[in-house]
Amino acid sequence: MTTFSADRSYAQELDAADQLAPFRDRFVRQDRELIYLDGNSLGPLPVRTQARIAEVVDQDWGVGLVRSWDRWIQLPRQAGDMLGEHLLGAVPGQVIVCDSVTVNLYKLAWAAVDARPGRDVVITDDDNFPTDRYVLQGMAAQRGCELRVIHTDMDNGISEEALAEALDDRVALVALSHVAYRSGGLADMTKLTDLIHRAGALVLWDLCHSVGAVPVELDASGADLAVGCTYKYVNAGPGAPGFLYVREDLQALLCQPIWGWFGQHDQFAMGPRYDPAPGIDSFLTGTPNIIGSVAVEEGARLLGEAGLAALRAKSIELTSYLIALADEWLMSLGFMIASPRDAARRGGHVTLRHDDAWPISQALIRANVVGDYRTPDRLRLAPVPLTTSFTEVFDAMDRLREVAATKSYADVPLEPHRVT
Amino acid sequence: MTTFSADRSYAQELDAADQLAPFRDRFVRQDRELIYLDGNSLGPLPVRTQARIAEVVDQDWGVGLVRSWDRWIQLPRQAGDMLGEHLLGAVPGQVIVCDSVTVNLYKLAWAAVDARPGRDVVITDDDNFPTDRYVLQGMAAQRGCELRVIHTDMDNGISEEALAEALDDRVALVALSHVAYRSGGLADMTKLTDLIHRAGALVLWDLCHSVGAVPVELDASGADLAVGCTYKYVNAGPGAPGFLYVREDLQALLCQPIWGWFGQHDQFAMGPRYDPAPGIDSFLTGTPNIIGSVAVEEGARLLGEAGLAALRAKSIELTSYLIALADEWLMSLGFMIASPRDAARRGGHVTLRHDDAWPISQALIRANVVGDYRTPDRLRLAPVPLTTSFTEVFDAMDRLREVAATKSYADVPLEPHRVT
Repeated sequence: MTTFSADRSYAQELDAADQLAPFRDRFVRQDRELIYLDGNSLGPLPVRTQARIAEVVDQDWGVGLVRSWDRWIQLPRQAGDMLGEHLLGAVPGQVIVCDSVTVNLYKLAWAAVDARPGRDVVITDDDNFPTDRYVLQGMAAQRGCELRVIHTDMDNGISEEALAEALDDRVALVALSHVAYRSGGLADMTKLTDLIHRAGALVLWDLCHSVGAVPVELDASGADLAVGCTYKYVNAGPGAPGFLYVREDLQALLCQPIWGWFGQHDQFAMGPRYDPAPGIDSFLTGTPNIIGSVAVEEGARLLGEAGLAALRAKSIELTSYLIALADEWLMSLGFMIASPRDAARRGGHVTLRHDDAWPISQALIRANVVGDYRTPDRLRLAPVPLTTSFTEVFDAMDRLREVAATKSYADVPLEPHRVT
Repeated sequence: MTTFSADRSYAQELDAADQLAPFRDRFVRQDRELIYLDGNSLGPLPVRTQARIAEVVDQDWGVGLVRSWDRWIQLPRQAGDMLGEHLLGAVPGQVIVCDSVTVNLYKLAWAAVDARPGRDVVITDDDNFPTDRYVLQGMAAQRGCELRVIHTDMDNGISEEALAEALDDRVALVALSHVAYRSGGLADMTKLTDLIHRAGALVLWDLCHSVGAVPVELDASGADLAVGCTYKYVNAGPGAPGFLYVREDLQALLCQPIWGWFGQHDQFAMGPRYDPAPGIDSFLTGTPNIIGSVAVEEGARLLGEAGLAALRAKSIELTSYLIALADEWLMSLGFMIASPRDAARRGGHVTLRHDDAWPISQALIRANVVGDYRTPDRLRLAPVPLTTSFTEVFDAMDRLREVAATKSYADVPLEPHRVT
């Protein structure tokens, strides 16, 4: 490969050498002019998923009707095992697709605190995703535990030192994100899990911004618990269900608090008392979202076909290239890189900081480049290995430079959540 | 209308006079030989819903991508208001579509107990749907409250006397089903709500087996809280989201325990502390299921078009006709009616009792009639007004008579949940 140059022909060279390029055709791309760098918020629609959803609706529901439950009943576990095998480094029987990330966080955090009697502290960090912080605040309020919030550098992710300092023998659970939603900072799962275990606490990893974007090795890292969503890099569609992981030896020890009929042993006996199903099934609650679960299965299968190692290699190339162009073009225009520069410490997206990040993000959409804005002054750009070309990264950055240089965003109104 | 006769021509006469008959074409009916009497478990697929799901997948997700969230964000409330208006007798801003019934039960039951400080008893009945009983058992275990379980006649539904006897000034919440899942017994919502309120407790109605099947008047009855599912009579598809109702004046008083980012005021400010959104939005948790919510909206719209009064009138005709045929043909074959005979006390399905209910239900499926089996010895049959004709009821009962009389079910293996 030739040396970096801020010239479009260099991007074209990279595209020509890209082994994953054919996967672009596995996604619906009706608007070929659009540069989509927001797969970290909502992943695009795989062609096969589109067909499979139609099949589930038209055939399984439309014709099979209630009889299709004979197969559907397996889906939460089947889709979970598929995620485990292809994306999470988890042997079967430890991952299940159900509920939302928020509800799964609640279930696992609650169960984890119960599993560490005599300990009454939960740790998270101040730059964790809002729903993680809110769920833990709620649980702390309900149970009277202490929520200890460590400070995290908004540009870099979790600090090992801050965590080490907060840990003591009162800590029952530490809940952290594997990839920080704002900076894209990638935590060292094995190292932090070890640190947490040495203090006798359990760890709950939020994988929302890492599943499908970076290799996750739940079993190998010794992680206890994890949750994640499937509508970002897993491409399972808007509001597709979340998943959860409980390490096999913990499953019998942990009792989640929402006792529903899908978590019941011998469910259709409809017995008088709740008697949790053995294994990972006990972490189910109500009737699962079937269309969403099918899309999870297809999404995981597609990423598995490409292979996480190849995906990660191209993702690093894409984000490194994006950063190199930002260094070349944007630093004089008021931007800063707000993601780790070390690729080994970075997830699938790059965050830029700019005082006018909100109006710039909107003007960029008008220029047919969709990224996203995050408070207070961040622009997130996610070039996704299966769907983004290097030329698209070049063009997106070129338009971003143009928008910022010409201040073509001056007419954009205030960000909506500040208009009250 | 002529007098009842156990002759097929009578059914044909009823069909000819049926104003709702044209609605049959609003549903996908590829297999026209199938008699589907299990809409109380999974409702059939409306044609418009099929098209709308394809539109959401192909256009909103496939082309609009993350930009579609501008509209999707309104869906939980929009679909909730649609249910409120057409099916629940609730003015806007009190119903929201989210999570599953199980999770919604948990949220509301928890919040209700908090809202009645000094009271530590929750009441339900022993024939309530399993997930309702299990959720309350779980909450009672976690909070140390007492779960008082009143006895309900399996064939008739809730006894007002048993409830009156169980109520006292320790009771914080009573959670009951409006229509009993087993017998189809229909509770008098207004009367029981009054009784419960006189004891100073809150009531939480489970509407799973009543929404879309019988008129529900939440506002007029003075009900406090309700939950329900949408995959039965609302025809929103397998695992479509549940809904919940919180009467307007209670919304600010009740704080549900799962604090997620969709329940947060000014969600995208992503502020440091959970600050619940005003109104019904505070009962949301995580990212909503978009495809499912769209199907709820379409399902409610379709039932609203037919009108609940017309639906209820035909439903009573259908179930009364089914019971009349059962009386005529089945009593000598070991069957009993296990639903209220008084139509005013019966929901949308009829339950028959037979010692061989399980193998009979399976042999009936072989005869192209899909009903469902419920432990220990019940066969549930739901002739649904929008999709079931009187002739289908005649044919189904005729085949049931044949199956039972010839014992053609003798080869059916034991019910699956007894095979362990």
